[in-house]
Amino acid sequence: MIITMKKGAPQAEVDRIIEGLEAKGLSVTTIIGANYNVFGVVGDTTIVDEKLIGANQYVDSITRIAAPYKKVNRLFHPEDSVIDVSGVKVGGQEKIVVIGGPCSVEGEEQILEIAKGVKEAGATMLRGGAYKPRTSPYAFQGLGSEGIQYMVKAREATGLPIVSELMSEDKLDEFVEYVDLIQIGARNMQNFNLLKALGKVKKPVLLKRGLANTIEEWLMSAEYIMAGGNENVILCERGIRTFEKYTRNTLDLSVVPLVKQKSHLPIIIDPSHATGDWRLVESMSLAAIAAGADGLIIEVHNHPEQAWSDGAQSLKVDKFKTLIEKGRKIAQVIGREMD
Amino acid sequence: MIITMKKGAPQAEVDRIIEGLEAKGLSVTTIIGANYNVFGVVGDTTIVDEKLIGANQYVDSITRIAAPYKKVNRLFHPEDSVIDVSGVKVGGQEKIVVIGGPCSVEGEEQILEIAKGVKEAGATMLRGGAYKPRTSPYAFQGLGSEGIQYMVKAREATGLPIVSELMSEDKLDEFVEYVDLIQIGARNMQNFNLLKALGKVKKPVLLKRGLANTIEEWLMSAEYIMAGGNENVILCERGIRTFEKYTRNTLDLSVVPLVKQKSHLPIIIDPSHATGDWRLVESMSLAAIAAGADGLIIEVHNHPEQAWSDGAQSLKVDKFKTLIEKGRKIAQVIGREMD
Amino acid sequence: MIITMKKGAPQAEVDRIIEGLEAKGLSVTTIIGANYNVFGVVGDTTIVDEKLIGANQYVDSITRIAAPYKKVNRLFHPEDSVIDVSGVKVGGQEKIVVIGGPCSVEGEEQILEIAKGVKEAGATMLRGGAYKPRTSPYAFQGLGSEGIQYMVKAREATGLPIVSELMSEDKLDEFVEYVDLIQIGARNMQNFNLLKALGKVKKPVLLKRGLANTIEEWLMSAEYIMAGGNENVILCERGIRTFEKYTRNTLDLSVVPLVKQKSHLPIIIDPSHATGDWRLVESMSLAAIAAGADGLIIEVHNHPEQAWSDGAQSLKVDKFKTLIEKGRKIAQVIGREMD
Amino acid sequence: MIITMKKGAPQAEVDRIIEGLEAKGLSVTTIIGANYNVFGVVGDTTIVDEKLIGANQYVDSITRIAAPYKKVNRLFHPEDSVIDVSGVKVGGQEKIVVIGGPCSVEGEEQILEIAKGVKEAGATMLRGGAYKPRTSPYAFQGLGSEGIQYMVKAREATGLPIVSELMSEDKLDEFVEYVDLIQIGARNMQNFNLLKALGKVKKPVLLKRGLANTIEEWLMSAEYIMAGGNENVILCERGIRTFEKYTRNTLDLSVVPLVKQKSHLPIIIDPSHATGDWRLVESMSLAAIAAGADGLIIEVHNHPEQAWSDGAQSLKVDKFKTLIEKGRKIAQVIGREMD
Repeated sequence: MIITMKKGAPQAEVDRIIEGLEAKGLSVTTIIGANYNVFGVVGDTTIVDEKLIGANQYVDSITRIAAPYKKVNRLFHPEDSVIDVSGVKVGGQEKIVVIGGPCSVEGEEQILEIAKGVKEAGATMLRGGAYKPRTSPYAFQGLGSEGIQYMVKAREATGLPIVSELMSEDKLDEFVEYVDLIQIGARNMQNFNLLKALGKVKKPVLLKRGLANTIEEWLMSAEYIMAGGNENVILCERGIRTFEKYTRNTLDLSVVPLVKQKSHLPIIIDPSHATGDWRLVESMSLAAIAAGADGLIIEVHNHPEQAWSDGAQSLKVDKFKTLIEKGRKIAQVIGREMD
Repeated sequence: MIITMKKGAPQAEVDRIIEGLEAKGLSVTTIIGANYNVFGVVGDTTIVDEKLIGANQYVDSITRIAAPYKKVNRLFHPEDSVIDVSGVKVGGQEKIVVIGGPCSVEGEEQILEIAKGVKEAGATMLRGGAYKPRTSPYAFQGLGSEGIQYMVKAREATGLPIVSELMSEDKLDEFVEYVDLIQIGARNMQNFNLLKALGKVKKPVLLKRGLANTIEEWLMSAEYIMAGGNENVILCERGIRTFEKYTRNTLDLSVVPLVKQKSHLPIIIDPSHATGDWRLVESMSLAAIAAGADGLIIEVHNHPEQAWSDGAQSLKVDKFKTLIEKGRKIAQVIGREMD
Repeated sequence: MIITMKKGAPQAEVDRIIEGLEAKGLSVTTIIGANYNVFGVVGDTTIVDEKLIGANQYVDSITRIAAPYKKVNRLFHPEDSVIDVSGVKVGGQEKIVVIGGPCSVEGEEQILEIAKGVKEAGATMLRGGAYKPRTSPYAFQGLGSEGIQYMVKAREATGLPIVSELMSEDKLDEFVEYVDLIQIGARNMQNFNLLKALGKVKKPVLLKRGLANTIEEWLMSAEYIMAGGNENVILCERGIRTFEKYTRNTLDLSVVPLVKQKSHLPIIIDPSHATGDWRLVESMSLAAIAAGADGLIIEVHNHPEQAWSDGAQSLKVDKFKTLIEKGRKIAQVIGREMD
Repeated sequence: MIITMKKGAPQAEVDRIIEGLEAKGLSVTTIIGANYNVFGVVGDTTIVDEKLIGANQYVDSITRIAAPYKKVNRLFHPEDSVIDVSGVKVGGQEKIVVIGGPCSVEGEEQILEIAKGVKEAGATMLRGGAYKPRTSPYAFQGLGSEGIQYMVKAREATGLPIVSELMSEDKLDEFVEYVDLIQIGARNMQNFNLLKALGKVKKPVLLKRGLANTIEEWLMSAEYIMAGGNENVILCERGIRTFEKYTRNTLDLSVVPLVKQKSHLPIIIDPSHATGDWRLVESMSLAAIAAGADGLIIEVHNHPEQAWSDGAQSLKVDKFKTLIEKGRKIAQVIGREMD
């Protein structure tokens, strides 16, 4: 951590800051410049609150050198983490996973038909939303527990582990009992109470990046879950908000190699929500595999034009199958496998 | 609502969409262009899910003409709403309110001292965080219920209504009992379960704009609360995330006149979180008043350099007092009053 | 084009707008809603200035249905354009091109060595900056004409067509004489005088997307060049500016399939400027090929740590060669070839 | 400047970097951490190219402490600069200036009528575009030299200094001869050749912030002009590009106090282009004055609904007059004057 103080700072103020840092067991090196006094702080700076130091009127700026996360940091955990989702392994050199299914569970028949379709096409997990975060209070809000039970039936019928989004702590027990991979949506990435609750269970968590959150904030949210005791975290990029209007979000594929540098956690890509347009899903899926992603989560519907939500971004099963076939070949080029 | 379909769309597809809309009680007008067929849809289009229609492969684009919100819409509620916060009125031609206080409640003595200071300076409400949303799991997370009780004591000592942030539904009863104005932070603006729970109580809600949420999404979150039955919503702009790095966020003051066009709800400004720098707070506060804001929420601390959170953006009481004195004069110029 | 007027608009104002549109040869259909009067305007709406209509105080909003570009629009030119750069064909089903070379030409020996290296590795064109747009006036500004002449020598030695950035009209003659593909940098994407000048020559232009320009604005800049008479335009995505700080820019690969829907022009990707980090270049290059890009432009340097500019994002020749070898295999999977 | 190297870096690499820096006359202090070696570099670091150092594979990150600009830096020029525009002084404690006029000069009669109107309303300079940067090649491109001559006539008639936008170097002589304040538009903020040309003349320059440029980049563009020898630079904020869609741009008023901290140059605000909506111009103008701006530049038209460009954001003269009257009173509150 680097602290820059203005040249005219009274010595007493400078000393007070240095003593405060040393009292925390940190060591401080001074660099004298023409216009600033700069201090290098060495030790476990994750415990230092930079906003507190910044309140001193003589402090000009504070810069972190070391990352503020520990448990997610590859520096302290060099080998890849592999997360086991009810038998399907994600990360490291394991096979690239493909999670397929509808945005919303709409009924028993619908989810069973889609589950069989995506399995036949090559998917290794089934997704389906039962509790839906919707921008409008007048839009369909999901089937709730009924939807979860239909997902359970689809798992029984196909053997595919199931993935669904948890929106609040009060349903955590239900998810721990019935769901194989608990998805935390973009809008809840910094719902810290929910993250703390997830830290207390052992179920794998699929943590989506927030719409406008930096990679560092995303990793800090994973740190919340891991610091609580649950190390089963899979990251999921789903596009960020930018000024562009032709796509719903901007899919940031450079996070794949970058997250793999910074962290040991697996990372998968959601091209459906990122683009909001099924016509872009195949090419973005192939690009994600080429970039080194550990998996894909893709919206698939039997009748997209009759879907109750997000039909515009859902693939039909046949197109999903073609995508997987091409994806397998891309995977081979970069030395990975895919079912 | 305008629906654009590609020229080559089979008549059966076109008919199916028109029939679907008419079945919902909407009327459809057709416009034939050289390259597109365009349909104008008239009626209560808030019930139409545009993503569903967009799933049709012949649909090129869908554009809403009418706003997707109803209860927050000034079109259907032309007069300004005035929200009563335990006797302090916010909005319309009422006095401009100033909410002052620390980021976090740190102890009984601290909050009492600050409460007396901000009251003496001219504040009409007291803010103080007891449950704190922090990016890092290693940072101070707030005093919780203890902090709320210290706030209650500060209210007893000064008579100032108290404002504090609610982070999850399980504390709602506590807030309804003890807090005068329930703040929903930027990170929870789209925590829809929390919004629904707030719709069931009558306490006033201070709804902060999300870091990267559009004005429309913000108004839709207010709509969630109002649609649930709680019409006591005050909006609060606190800066949005942009590419700029010299300020923590970019304070968007144009939302003040814009929100007043679109909605009848009061809007206040938080210059402390927006800028992240106490040196910018006074000028942004005066600018907010000049722009027509119904109030300000400002971080004030007795010892910012020893604060447990966000010291860098907190004013000392004397500077806060100066700000209020100047603010009163600006208010007069635009025909408003301020205590 | 859809024009929405407020309900209370005087009939005379409504009539005046309709007459103005009809006088331009457009036809107008009226849709009456409960709260708005909506008009659908059919015909060549590229000639209508929406800001002019928006100045009418009774107009609520204006929405374009048809794209504002014509010559770049795939609707009117369904087959892919193939651009011939001194014998190297770009676009359609032609081979994927790889343009390699240093950020800046630093001397004759340097550019010759790199040119031979990239050719041997598989590149089909050579890049090198002679006129450099630098944020700081104190940074190296390029060798100018001397640099162009070294590029010419490198072309003579290797046979590779050369690509270099033009920063102002006064050097256009020099570029037309010596350069094979004229690059327009992100900062000049909306330097309209320069675009007009390029419209008057026949040389192929590599038009980079601006740092914060929408796809529509980018296509409009291509339209400027084509409307002037030069149809040889190749688009190049190089990352957009977002809030993320771990990468220099955010590479938006979804533009590849999207631009191919909207336009017939070829599109290539610059992963070096997008990421600003050589460690991310290989995976982003492979992703770009998988996404369907028509080519890559990559910074390669013999001694990146001694480069005069942008060393941090330059690959060494051996890594560049490995990248091309993997890229060829990805190209095959999606049915394309690459030298 | 702080350089962070990975722990495993070979001593030879470390030494090579340190020697390189010392050879430039800089002094280097070493800080040893558990996971990194950190170096503090003291001296004139504006001459160091961080990208060059970043190319070393053992370098993890580089952070600047000192600002990269010198001539615009308040640190080396503590007193406010006051720029004289043909007798009208801008900056410091001078009167707040108001520049009014149409987006485009459309004819002699139009500009004369508006010039008289804005003067009568209280404006101290006249704006008017003769060369227009337009997104579409099919939109009105301005009257060119003819427009400049009409501006000259308007100056003769009213005595108001004239402001107009220069788009390319080849018209610089014309502007130096006829225009009082040369405006550089947002799209040309990083047209470095144009900035260099401006450095060689003495005419005052109004440098608009780019659509997506940071404050630091903006100050660096001012540095280009000043480093060339022209110290007469006035900065102008005109809104930045964000995800918000209800306004054309997001007006960032916090730049006013921030720029005044970092630099001694005057700063004015353009609320017309920032918002794109005349209904927001008055409140944003008053806010700008309250924030401490040295001036305003506002679009005014006699017949906005017939304007050839940007009518939607133009005020009529009577509203412009009301705005100035209110602005004067706001100016008094903060201790400034306004004509």
